[in-house]
Amino acid sequence: MKTLGYAAHSADSDLVPYHFERRELRPNDVAIEILYSGVCHSDLHTVNGDWGDQPYPLVPGHEIVGKVLSVGSDVKNYKVGDQVAVGCMVDSCQKCDQCHNHEEQFCRHGMTPTYGAPDRQSGEITQGGYSKHIVVREEFVLSIPESMDLSRTAPILCAGITTYSPLRHWGVKEGSRVGVVGLGGLGHMAVKLAVAMGAEVTVISRSKSKEEEAKALGAKGILASSDADEMQANGAAFDLIIDTVPVKHDVNVYTPLLDVNGSLVIVGQVGPLEELMSVPLVFNRRSVAGSLIGGIKETQEVIDFCAKHDIYPECEMIKMDGINGAFERLAQGDLAHRFVIDMSSLSVD
Amino acid sequence: MKTLGYAAHSADSDLVPYHFERRELRPNDVAIEILYSGVCHSDLHTVNGDWGDQPYPLVPGHEIVGKVLSVGSDVKNYKVGDQVAVGCMVDSCQKCDQCHNHEEQFCRHGMTPTYGAPDRQSGEITQGGYSKHIVVREEFVLSIPESMDLSRTAPILCAGITTYSPLRHWGVKEGSRVGVVGLGGLGHMAVKLAVAMGAEVTVISRSKSKEEEAKALGAKGILASSDADEMQANGAAFDLIIDTVPVKHDVNVYTPLLDVNGSLVIVGQVGPLEELMSVPLVFNRRSVAGSLIGGIKETQEVIDFCAKHDIYPECEMIKMDGINGAFERLAQGDLAHRFVIDMSSLSVD
Repeated sequence: MKTLGYAAHSADSDLVPYHFERRELRPNDVAIEILYSGVCHSDLHTVNGDWGDQPYPLVPGHEIVGKVLSVGSDVKNYKVGDQVAVGCMVDSCQKCDQCHNHEEQFCRHGMTPTYGAPDRQSGEITQGGYSKHIVVREEFVLSIPESMDLSRTAPILCAGITTYSPLRHWGVKEGSRVGVVGLGGLGHMAVKLAVAMGAEVTVISRSKSKEEEAKALGAKGILASSDADEMQANGAAFDLIIDTVPVKHDVNVYTPLLDVNGSLVIVGQVGPLEELMSVPLVFNRRSVAGSLIGGIKETQEVIDFCAKHDIYPECEMIKMDGINGAFERLAQGDLAHRFVIDMSSLSVD
Repeated sequence: MKTLGYAAHSADSDLVPYHFERRELRPNDVAIEILYSGVCHSDLHTVNGDWGDQPYPLVPGHEIVGKVLSVGSDVKNYKVGDQVAVGCMVDSCQKCDQCHNHEEQFCRHGMTPTYGAPDRQSGEITQGGYSKHIVVREEFVLSIPESMDLSRTAPILCAGITTYSPLRHWGVKEGSRVGVVGLGGLGHMAVKLAVAMGAEVTVISRSKSKEEEAKALGAKGILASSDADEMQANGAAFDLIIDTVPVKHDVNVYTPLLDVNGSLVIVGQVGPLEELMSVPLVFNRRSVAGSLIGGIKETQEVIDFCAKHDIYPECEMIKMDGINGAFERLAQGDLAHRFVIDMSSLSVD
């Protein structure tokens, strides 16, 4: 299938229109017309080569929503016209303990990311959601309830699941005390989801400048990490801290805020953190952990959870040709929302 | 009560004989004649001032076994002649959630260490086990089964509980795959205890030079961290790693050895670790945690566990006046055993 996307042709080039082919449908494939595509900070890191060399030309995007265009002969769960989504993975071995345990993100043979990785059958490089169409095996296609507003749903596929999964894994429930470090794309979803789970949520940020924004999302307020007295007063005040900061930083600022047995979970930074102090971990048996998106079953769960609780990411709609400007704004710092590309702004003609 | 111990009078002085008074018995106190006192690496760190200024003269020692000499009027559980022990704590608030939960080491008001801290009632500085006698409230006195060899029991009170507690907390059981980094006082106890729990235990060390020692303790063998191929081949091979290294080190060498959801638990180093890489944590949802000794109930549990499984620390008996030489050997590096002071070598006269 011929399609059109926006691709980077090198680490330092802008994204530009790129005509390419999507594979012909295999029996278990679903072809999707992409309507909206979220812009994740990791798209920027990846195309810039921050996380290693990339197979250019590369079409990023792993927060994908659209409608089913056609299905392969063996597809059981989707039909033409269904509202569907695709997240950060498009395949895995489907045979290992992790896949059987619905944790395909930890597949023993490596999951196949939505873009920039070889397809398990053809070896062809996968291309992402900044495009008009995508073809994905049905096991990696998510269903979007009819009631949902498609234009605001895409970021759930990465920012949503990336924060939902650790909140669930670390047992957040009614009354849990959750801290969220950073109020960008991931952070603002962490706040909304934790609040919907009944947690008391505090945003931890350098200053209180975003306090109104935090409160509007449902947080109790902001704890300013620059205020030593306030930080001291909040020692042992959190059961769980979701750390969404996407650059090298000092987690020792936050670990003393955890209660006994508490965990700080890294979901933003992929790379080094500052030297780790053992004392706050040893005294009070705290942990520093990491978490990676979530499995397909759990991704469906967060979509359904958002539908039920009327949770949407804060979205700023852009046109496809606005992507390079959006990347620039993203690089400048936290935005308490996600850019979403309206794919109708890109014409195949 | 007049007694005699060995005390440091400054951060850079040897330990020398020191006459001092133990308090008169309060109604809930137990007076103990100390028979054996283990030598913990932390004694050395503390008297050297590595962990902050100390209130000299300071008598270290928190691996204490002996016999009850006399008891206060309200003491219920001990009588004259009983075999007893004292570990790293001699008091806590007894009122907070952590104390009620048998985790006095995490007392909200701070537990009272066995030496170098103000007594909660008198403010007098506590003095440790390198002495002939100690007076401790009965809630912090442990019972030693009659069957146990007192001369080899003392190190259970710190090295034993410090490794037993995380093995239990992180759910080690039959078939668990446990790695132990370092084969000193803590490491060799971690191996023995994990083996007795039914785990498959591997020592992780720079080289295989201690392999026979490791096997004699019950370990499967040594994984040499200097062998890149072997380390690679052991990716995701452990459910839990107990890291006993007592100096600044690089935990990123070990985190990739953890399976999905695995934890590396710091029990040795009190201070900074090298820069922490988030990638091994994020991919596979691994954790780096810390653990501090254990509660009194759990300390009794490890003593009883050792009695049941006939587990003893490897002990090298020294005389009291050999302590400065023992400190020197301890400072030079890992010894796969503990020094234990035979307190009969110190005369009060």
